[in-house]
Amino acid sequence: MRKDMKQLPVNQFQVKDIFWGNYLELVRASVIPYQWEALNDRIEGAEPSHCIRNFEIAAGRKTGEFSGFVFQDSDLYKWLEAAAYSLMRCPDADLEKKADEAIELIGQAQQPDGYLDTYYIINGLENRFTDLESNHELYCLGHMIEAATAYAQATGKRRFLEISAAFADCAAEHLGKEPGKLPGYPGHEVAEMALVKLYAMTGEKKYLRLASYFIDQRGQQPLFFEQEDREQGRTCYWRDDLGYRYYQAAEPVRGQQEAEGHAVRAVYLYSGMADVARETEDEELFAACKRIWKNIVEKKLYLTGAVGASAHGESFSYNYNLPNDLIYGETCAAVGLVFLAKRMFEMTGDSSYLDVMERALYNGVISGMSLDGKSFFYVNPLEVTPQACHEDHNFAHVKPVRQKWFGCACCPPNLARLLSSVANYAFTTDKDGIYLNLFMGGRVSFETENCRGELEVSTDYPWDGRISVRVVRVEGAPFTMRMRVPGWCRDFAVFRNGGRTEPVRSEGFAALQEMRQGEEAVLELSMPVELIAAHPNVRADMGKAAVMRGPLVYCLEEADNGSGLHRLSLPAGAVFAAEYRDMLGGVTALTCSGLRKTDEGWEEGDLYQVWRSPAEEPVTLTWIPYYAWANRGEGEMSVWIRIKE
Amino acid sequence: MRKDMKQLPVNQFQVKDIFWGNYLELVRASVIPYQWEALNDRIEGAEPSHCIRNFEIAAGRKTGEFSGFVFQDSDLYKWLEAAAYSLMRCPDADLEKKADEAIELIGQAQQPDGYLDTYYIINGLENRFTDLESNHELYCLGHMIEAATAYAQATGKRRFLEISAAFADCAAEHLGKEPGKLPGYPGHEVAEMALVKLYAMTGEKKYLRLASYFIDQRGQQPLFFEQEDREQGRTCYWRDDLGYRYYQAAEPVRGQQEAEGHAVRAVYLYSGMADVARETEDEELFAACKRIWKNIVEKKLYLTGAVGASAHGESFSYNYNLPNDLIYGETCAAVGLVFLAKRMFEMTGDSSYLDVMERALYNGVISGMSLDGKSFFYVNPLEVTPQACHEDHNFAHVKPVRQKWFGCACCPPNLARLLSSVANYAFTTDKDGIYLNLFMGGRVSFETENCRGELEVSTDYPWDGRISVRVVRVEGAPFTMRMRVPGWCRDFAVFRNGGRTEPVRSEGFAALQEMRQGEEAVLELSMPVELIAAHPNVRADMGKAAVMRGPLVYCLEEADNGSGLHRLSLPAGAVFAAEYRDMLGGVTALTCSGLRKTDEGWEEGDLYQVWRSPAEEPVTLTWIPYYAWANRGEGEMSVWIRIKE
Repeated sequence: MRKDMKQLPVNQFQVKDIFWGNYLELVRASVIPYQWEALNDRIEGAEPSHCIRNFEIAAGRKTGEFSGFVFQDSDLYKWLEAAAYSLMRCPDADLEKKADEAIELIGQAQQPDGYLDTYYIINGLENRFTDLESNHELYCLGHMIEAATAYAQATGKRRFLEISAAFADCAAEHLGKEPGKLPGYPGHEVAEMALVKLYAMTGEKKYLRLASYFIDQRGQQPLFFEQEDREQGRTCYWRDDLGYRYYQAAEPVRGQQEAEGHAVRAVYLYSGMADVARETEDEELFAACKRIWKNIVEKKLYLTGAVGASAHGESFSYNYNLPNDLIYGETCAAVGLVFLAKRMFEMTGDSSYLDVMERALYNGVISGMSLDGKSFFYVNPLEVTPQACHEDHNFAHVKPVRQKWFGCACCPPNLARLLSSVANYAFTTDKDGIYLNLFMGGRVSFETENCRGELEVSTDYPWDGRISVRVVRVEGAPFTMRMRVPGWCRDFAVFRNGGRTEPVRSEGFAALQEMRQGEEAVLELSMPVELIAAHPNVRADMGKAAVMRGPLVYCLEEADNGSGLHRLSLPAGAVFAAEYRDMLGGVTALTCSGLRKTDEGWEEGDLYQVWRSPAEEPVTLTWIPYYAWANRGEGEMSVWIRIKE
Repeated sequence: MRKDMKQLPVNQFQVKDIFWGNYLELVRASVIPYQWEALNDRIEGAEPSHCIRNFEIAAGRKTGEFSGFVFQDSDLYKWLEAAAYSLMRCPDADLEKKADEAIELIGQAQQPDGYLDTYYIINGLENRFTDLESNHELYCLGHMIEAATAYAQATGKRRFLEISAAFADCAAEHLGKEPGKLPGYPGHEVAEMALVKLYAMTGEKKYLRLASYFIDQRGQQPLFFEQEDREQGRTCYWRDDLGYRYYQAAEPVRGQQEAEGHAVRAVYLYSGMADVARETEDEELFAACKRIWKNIVEKKLYLTGAVGASAHGESFSYNYNLPNDLIYGETCAAVGLVFLAKRMFEMTGDSSYLDVMERALYNGVISGMSLDGKSFFYVNPLEVTPQACHEDHNFAHVKPVRQKWFGCACCPPNLARLLSSVANYAFTTDKDGIYLNLFMGGRVSFETENCRGELEVSTDYPWDGRISVRVVRVEGAPFTMRMRVPGWCRDFAVFRNGGRTEPVRSEGFAALQEMRQGEEAVLELSMPVELIAAHPNVRADMGKAAVMRGPLVYCLEEADNGSGLHRLSLPAGAVFAAEYRDMLGGVTALTCSGLRKTDEGWEEGDLYQVWRSPAEEPVTLTWIPYYAWANRGEGEMSVWIRIKE
């Protein structure tokens, strides 16, 4: 496994991108302020969060009862993390002041021994650490660390880092295999990867040890959660089906073969496993990550990068069970898949991981947020019939329009923190150069062992496949620039200083060596519209095709194509026209000829009739990028369309 | 509306039929004895019923607590009804003794004022009639009357009839719009149609009045169930979606436009409405029946005659929402649809009602029972993937194999009572003749205003379309014989005494007038295999076709066609071979050429790829009648198959 690859610090990328620039600005100018209001219960018509109020009560500033979910604290941490990344990019004294005050509030709620979970502080500390399975204390710890490390990086201030370290110390004091400690681990994972960050920032090995312990204790016999259940006088909530697989805790993680259980927890765990494997150079643990990753991408991944097919337990389902309409596909799970993909890439240099990361990011992640940044999907279906959402209980979890805020508000701030830190994902450096993982316009400063450089990237990606890079500055030795050739791309060309060149190709990158100041490189990715098929084992997509152009999955919406999308079909030889349109914030829309089944030949009132060649009329199908669906009111949507061979 | 049509008494038809003969014999020799054991908790490995035990406790013969569902009493009543019909057909001293003893037990449990529900007798009579919405007292009353009237008809014994009349009197004493009475009605309908039977048998108008009251009070403001909920300090269990529509009680029945809510309750209510409309010559009420019927058959009926698309609330879903895999399609709902269809036919003489009755009876009703009569489906899907039943929570209600008995055992005895009384459905008389509604071999004695006759029917229906009738005897005037020409039949011929004749056609019947002793008539229904399409509004069946031959819907099973049925497709011009085979109790199986998608061209590990014309291999598809599926172990099954145009 590789240990030489590094993510680009957020503040070393100045985004100037027609696609992501808008998202980052939305997060800064709209999502972060809006979510601050939400955390303070000041959004009219939205479910109250109670989050800040809980901290105020725990800190003794107010009296009252704990409200909201048991993991409500984590919403503030996620918000602080998004704010930290935003501050790195765009200093903002007012935002930093709000964040500092929030951190003071958090600090005031902290107990003398470092403990910090408002649910137990308010409801009785005697019960803390008695229900790790369900009560999310360690999940809150994890998100606190994620935020605190980001905030320290953004501002140089250590206060929040110290608060989080003290809580981590408290957890380490109580949990472990040593006599007198509880042999527990998180019910909802995230602390694992967070502790590795805390270790990286503080250099304190104890945090890496705690992360390792959490990972290796998980699923050991006797099962800790089973013991907790017995002590609480209950049986596993998921006893009828998922059992402790819901928590990825039915067996030790090194023996697990498939991605199972609650999808967000799962991908967070696997990310933590990758982190620990890398830091401890544990090839066996890394092999488990690779095995599970393979299971996901080969058998449990939606075309959009969504994961978690089942609403029951918000969980992975069995292999190839990928219903487009019953899907859960939580935004947070796609976010977590991006975390995992990035880690797997950084441990291998293999761009196939980035293909999945890009798939999720451009489709199933950003579909979670409306174009105005003010409403959010928890569930990201690939096929929606609004009447089913309203009237068919099987689809009660699927919302046909995004919601303002959720009582369980994990997804909106999770999106905000990912988008704010997108530079971490777009660029990677190693000892002799830089990797362009994703294509975003802007200015990048980077360092390798032998140089400091600066690039200016210009592109209209994902609408256009041309990526142009100018080496603005190189101090020190020349460097290698590796530009990713996406897995979806079947034809590309590279130009260096105006002339076509044959780059070195390796692990999905086109590498240009010895790059010097003043040089210019252009990657031209051919970006035709492609029809996509799913493996014949996927029942839901049998006889259907989807449409992609570049990294974007497209869909049909009722707004463009009328109702009854199931009546439409796509000829296998369809010719597509792609046109940039001033709609949905500016998108390349696609059109092609299709067919629509009509009612012609149906006797009034017949529900069934003897089959005959069906009446169809020619129609023009209009496709929009999947991420932009449901921004024009409620209507049907479908990614997979019947194909006419 | 017509009032001159009469059902044929069960004991006037001696079945000698290759198809139904087997079912009737199964019910007599196996189902009834088996269910008696089940009611007495003597079936190893099956959930105990507690039913008889509850009566014994209520009667003071034993001590103990009430166990099982609140409507457990009804299982004994349904069994007694099935036994009564069986006794009419085949006297059996031992069975009659068991039934008499059970009736004595029931009588012993009856309270001095006629009240009879073991749940409240055991748990406290002070609470009786306080939860009509949920606690099924009137449902038990209904089934008691259904059984008691059948038993009186079968044996001439009045004891059970008197017990049930006394309970009906008790209900009438407490319920009604008069001051001092509760303005309530049944939470689960069935008493409505039962009371009309009690009225017909006793001539006591008060029972018809009680039925009328139940029907017209339903859904009146203020809503009785809402008041009960308030008094119980609760809100409607279905408040989030179905509301009081679950009980068909959100508005007065005369104003209802669609079939809604719990499907069994619904079709039982509509049957009761039809009965009351007929007895009271209430055209407005009958118009409501016709309107709702139209909604069912045009928008909510499965090809198999199953109704109730939604597992949530075991209910009707919205128009055209007919998922083949998520379906509920309870056996009892198909049974209830047969009840309703019979009533609608008897009020109109229109055989289109019989088409639906036949569709349900030959497919979605008998699919509920295994061929050995020992295991049962509650849910009757049109598409099954066993792995989904086991591992996907959405399909947890769907069982891939029939179960021995259920804690909630409504379906098995309901099937038994319907099958035992199938003669009621097969033949109808009016003042001048007899209707052959369904085609079953055997000997029928009948009466009209002017004659007594006897027919000998010979047929291999549904395997063959030839129905031959010999007039064995006519005393009195000649009669008219109306033979149904099923809606599925596009070509037929009628022969009278060997010569082809053009019968009078009216309302779906071929009528032969002036039939006399010794005459012979033959109806030859052309019975080719037909491909069937569903209306384009049915999303689940889009791009698919089903296969029927005569009244039978066919399906593909894994046992004949291998796994991955979704990979199969059917060419639109498929040529079928029909062959009678000695399997599954003897069936005509169908074969045709089809195609199966293969994995050819798929790179190892790819879940998605650029679409290309898919690799397919030619296969022989083997179809069996739907009712006979799941008699060869667990496997996939599908009725609707992708069609290749």
